[in-house]
Amino acid sequence: MEPLDYLAQERSMASFDVEEMKVVWAGSRHAYELSDRYSRLVASDPVFRKDNRTMLSRKELFKDTLRKTAHAVKRTVELNLSEEESLTLWSYVDQPAYANLHWGMFIPAIEGQGTEEQKQKWLPMAYKMQIIGCYAQTELGHGSNVQGLETTATFDPETDEFVIHSPTLTSSKWWPGGLGKVSTHAVVYARLITNGQDYGVQGFIVQLRSLDDHSPLPGITVGDIGMKFGSGAYNSMDNGVLRFDHVRIPRNQMLMRVSQVTREGKYVQSDVPRQLLYGTMVSVRQIIVSESSIALSRAVCIATRYSAVRRQFGSQNGGPETQVINYKTQQSRLFPLLASAYAFRFAGEWLQWLYTDVTKRLQANDFSTLPEVHACTAGLKSITTSATADAIEECRKLCGGHGYLSCSGLPELFAVYIPNCTYEGDNIVLLLQVARILMKTVSQLVSGKKPLGTTAYLGRVEHLMQCHCEVQRAEDWLKPSVILEAFEARAARMSVACAKTLSGFSNLEEGFAEISSDLVEAAVAHCQLIIVSKFIEKLQQEIPGKGVKTQLENLCNVYALSLLRKHLGDFVSTGCITPEQGALANEQLRLLYSQVRPNAVALVDAFNHTDHYLGSVLGRYDGNVYQKLYDEAWKSPLNDTDVPDGYHEYIRPLLKQHFHTARL
Amino acid sequence: MEPLDYLAQERSMASFDVEEMKVVWAGSRHAYELSDRYSRLVASDPVFRKDNRTMLSRKELFKDTLRKTAHAVKRTVELNLSEEESLTLWSYVDQPAYANLHWGMFIPAIEGQGTEEQKQKWLPMAYKMQIIGCYAQTELGHGSNVQGLETTATFDPETDEFVIHSPTLTSSKWWPGGLGKVSTHAVVYARLITNGQDYGVQGFIVQLRSLDDHSPLPGITVGDIGMKFGSGAYNSMDNGVLRFDHVRIPRNQMLMRVSQVTREGKYVQSDVPRQLLYGTMVSVRQIIVSESSIALSRAVCIATRYSAVRRQFGSQNGGPETQVINYKTQQSRLFPLLASAYAFRFAGEWLQWLYTDVTKRLQANDFSTLPEVHACTAGLKSITTSATADAIEECRKLCGGHGYLSCSGLPELFAVYIPNCTYEGDNIVLLLQVARILMKTVSQLVSGKKPLGTTAYLGRVEHLMQCHCEVQRAEDWLKPSVILEAFEARAARMSVACAKTLSGFSNLEEGFAEISSDLVEAAVAHCQLIIVSKFIEKLQQEIPGKGVKTQLENLCNVYALSLLRKHLGDFVSTGCITPEQGALANEQLRLLYSQVRPNAVALVDAFNHTDHYLGSVLGRYDGNVYQKLYDEAWKSPLNDTDVPDGYHEYIRPLLKQHFHTARL
Repeated sequence: MEPLDYLAQERSMASFDVEEMKVVWAGSRHAYELSDRYSRLVASDPVFRKDNRTMLSRKELFKDTLRKTAHAVKRTVELNLSEEESLTLWSYVDQPAYANLHWGMFIPAIEGQGTEEQKQKWLPMAYKMQIIGCYAQTELGHGSNVQGLETTATFDPETDEFVIHSPTLTSSKWWPGGLGKVSTHAVVYARLITNGQDYGVQGFIVQLRSLDDHSPLPGITVGDIGMKFGSGAYNSMDNGVLRFDHVRIPRNQMLMRVSQVTREGKYVQSDVPRQLLYGTMVSVRQIIVSESSIALSRAVCIATRYSAVRRQFGSQNGGPETQVINYKTQQSRLFPLLASAYAFRFAGEWLQWLYTDVTKRLQANDFSTLPEVHACTAGLKSITTSATADAIEECRKLCGGHGYLSCSGLPELFAVYIPNCTYEGDNIVLLLQVARILMKTVSQLVSGKKPLGTTAYLGRVEHLMQCHCEVQRAEDWLKPSVILEAFEARAARMSVACAKTLSGFSNLEEGFAEISSDLVEAAVAHCQLIIVSKFIEKLQQEIPGKGVKTQLENLCNVYALSLLRKHLGDFVSTGCITPEQGALANEQLRLLYSQVRPNAVALVDAFNHTDHYLGSVLGRYDGNVYQKLYDEAWKSPLNDTDVPDGYHEYIRPLLKQHFHTARL
Repeated sequence: MEPLDYLAQERSMASFDVEEMKVVWAGSRHAYELSDRYSRLVASDPVFRKDNRTMLSRKELFKDTLRKTAHAVKRTVELNLSEEESLTLWSYVDQPAYANLHWGMFIPAIEGQGTEEQKQKWLPMAYKMQIIGCYAQTELGHGSNVQGLETTATFDPETDEFVIHSPTLTSSKWWPGGLGKVSTHAVVYARLITNGQDYGVQGFIVQLRSLDDHSPLPGITVGDIGMKFGSGAYNSMDNGVLRFDHVRIPRNQMLMRVSQVTREGKYVQSDVPRQLLYGTMVSVRQIIVSESSIALSRAVCIATRYSAVRRQFGSQNGGPETQVINYKTQQSRLFPLLASAYAFRFAGEWLQWLYTDVTKRLQANDFSTLPEVHACTAGLKSITTSATADAIEECRKLCGGHGYLSCSGLPELFAVYIPNCTYEGDNIVLLLQVARILMKTVSQLVSGKKPLGTTAYLGRVEHLMQCHCEVQRAEDWLKPSVILEAFEARAARMSVACAKTLSGFSNLEEGFAEISSDLVEAAVAHCQLIIVSKFIEKLQQEIPGKGVKTQLENLCNVYALSLLRKHLGDFVSTGCITPEQGALANEQLRLLYSQVRPNAVALVDAFNHTDHYLGSVLGRYDGNVYQKLYDEAWKSPLNDTDVPDGYHEYIRPLLKQHFHTARL
């Protein structure tokens, strides 16, 4: 018997080679094969099952995570996986766990900030997981402002030790993942105090728990910080609280690559440039951008498939109702998100290249591109994560009422994704950093300094301030040069307008604070330009596969024109386009939706997500939604018995009038 | 000892009479006293505690809800509460439960659609809760399209019975609250079939469970549909699935006020106008609008208080850091939401009046205002719930990382609120209904038909199409007439533009489908105008209390000008205002934020929410946030033991190298 496929007809409509698109999406044939192999491996392993996750109590969920982590390590060993393979496997386990922080933050912190001796001592144990570590930076009272951390590390020359201490309630370490119940060690960020002087925040390796029985060491108070957003989701992680009561560590557990404290307690800066430390931050944010496209692709895949399955209204002569995906209101909400998934994917790909490039430069002591790379990753991290968080919720709404069920997969996807908007730099704080660089770039234009990289367009500011959009017919909006110039002009004019307003303030910082909302919008315009331009650049590369390029061109245009529609006020009020040209863009957008429509299901198939990874009844590959929703319902814990627990105490007495209501 | 109040200084800055504002917010002194009394009563009763709610398993949570419901009934009886008092008390219990549907949907359905005989038979039992009912309309395959429901009720003249049946999987009843585990009865909506003819959807009273032992009756398959968004939240409700296998009910259990089936099986329409049935829908939606302002006020209260407590960056000479609420980026995100809470409150107040008015008219067989009332409630339901859902999440983000903790109260508030965007009419579907009425109104202008009520401004369409905004300086934007005309002109021009585009289509329905996104935006513009105009009307009433009116004027201006900023593209591209006037609005908005700032905490105090009702550590009245966050952490189930469950099986073997990793 043929396998059931309710979406077969949808798939037959596609006018491009889906297999080739899978490779484009993955970035390379190697990446495609890797993800394909390990997503299927995880999907077929019963230990990695996750369909019951939202029904588990916190303790059960946490134990389930410990089990999955140990099993993933075991499989890694058994299959003799490379680091790349192992990371891919873990990503498909798809459950936040302490191991993410051990490998992603604890080890990189030592690698980046430790001396050679420190690395030789600690890394082998960490790589083997003989110790498990976390990254203890954020405190109860300080998140964004790292320089304001309050934990102290005071050097005691008598014993050659640092005394790690939590002097206030707000200095309690708070949030670090893996800290609460698992980590045996932490890289702790604390104010270095020696000879009575405060040298600011430094990292220290501190053991937290006994390696014999896992109990917290003397002077250490450590625990979990409690329930977080949603069911399942990040509750699999033991985000922790940590307090130190004069905990002593040897001097050589301060990470000393960039600065040192001598035996005598003298603070010394090494000749290693401090900028090197930014490398880690850039790396983490660049990964977040890549992951935003994955999270978004999952939500869009679910919403697109279910919109093709679901029918509502429009039955004629008793025939089937209209597929929801055929409604223009649905298309105008869904297709820009589909386009964004691809746009963010390519932006992430480019950022990865940029990171590789800057890493090479840093190794050769070339810091010239660092500010630009820093601004790019900060800005793209901000706008891709904000857009993705909103998009996941929009996809949920696009699924109607059923999107509210946990088994739709969307509630948990949202809950687990949204911290991306806050951690590794609050999204608004990051945009203000981008705005600072934009203002600096604009102010330096007068002196003839030529802006580089993604700010290069500001070098053509004179042209961009006065250019006129040449669109006369809707299809003129399909020209990449037209789109690019409109986005460049908008970004340039918004930056220049902010710079002009700022010049009216005698105190620049006051001005910056006063117009910070406008600065944020200018930064958004700049970052959206980057994404649009990287998508256009991608299309200039050779793209094999029948019809693949055409699809990507459509998606690029949908991305750009839907942004233009959304931010019409920017474009029109800066005079970049006329209201009539805005209306033509809108008209073109509707035509593009019609072209995306028959390819929509194939375009989400190209993400190559397994049903296990999607974790959504609504997003099932075969579209057999209703039967599975129905089957899923009976797994509800409340259905264990026909008559619910509590009936005898709390329902029967009402029905039998054991208390009388006052209503009558 | 004085009670601790970290926000005392904030409160001392307020330049208005907070007690009087509480009365304005509540709507009347009576309403204020009622809510004050019962919110405190609930807060002081240990049975109603809810701070552990997100830690309960589904079964525990459900039993807790049954217990609270029974306790609320008991207290109602003991205190001999009126219906108004009882409803107020229940609203502060703040946990979705079957009783909401019993009182809010099952009883009103019988009241509205039953004959006198039916009401006399069923209502006394329902009022006394000798039977508990739900409202079984939505099916697995049909939500928005009620006319597409598939459940059948076939009349059998031999036995004088209806046979209720679920002919397909998708005809399974799905979602009704209270259905899964509690309801003994349901009003079931099914297609009436008699003499082989389908007369469309009607309501039927069907018993589901035995009144002796609560077991499902023969032919009834009933259960819970499973986990929903978030922890706590709507998981306290037994939303249910229900299938009928040829279940027989007496003929007189069809609700026969509007149409009847005779003993012979003849279908008869009564002379009761069908429009009467819309009354219930209007009533429910009007309540949803009122409740949107409450939900929004809770989120805004939490975010405002915590923004005043939280400090980050900006320490000078070792002094305290800057309160987050002093940042303009924070103000520009938070204060429009604060203003929206007040705006929605007054819109809800007006809608309540409108509903009372239309109810009187309906009783006198005057249906003239019904279409207008229907459009108003549909439109306001849509835009207030969408805005509130987004605003709750925005408030969460405004609290930084700590907003992600369940104890911030915001995750559960979001999870429990968002279904409002989908149920009782999907928000996009509702806006399209509004758009239809707008298009009809515009098309009838030619024939000289004078539009009424909230569409009256369209009667001045000629003026509105050509008027010019007179703003020359920022403060000109403070004139209510200027704001009103800008919003009227924008709404009128967007509707007229849609009507013009539609006239280019030979098939009107095709045109409507094609430009439906633009129609949705025109409807939004119209609905925002209603809210702005009702706020302005409110300010024209006498408002007692020192400084109260000034505050409300500021909030009204913030609401209107922040909308203008957000939808600048509409205003500028329709030529209602110039880009320069848009910039002046922006300038004025910043000045308004400065005026709101010192009053912000007092303005949220005016909501008079108890700490119990807010359920938020971040939103505590006394601002003692960090100590309580810290204390709260230790209640995490994972902190029951120092060493977590699973350590011996899944952590220790790693640390002890019982499997070796392949990394090295």
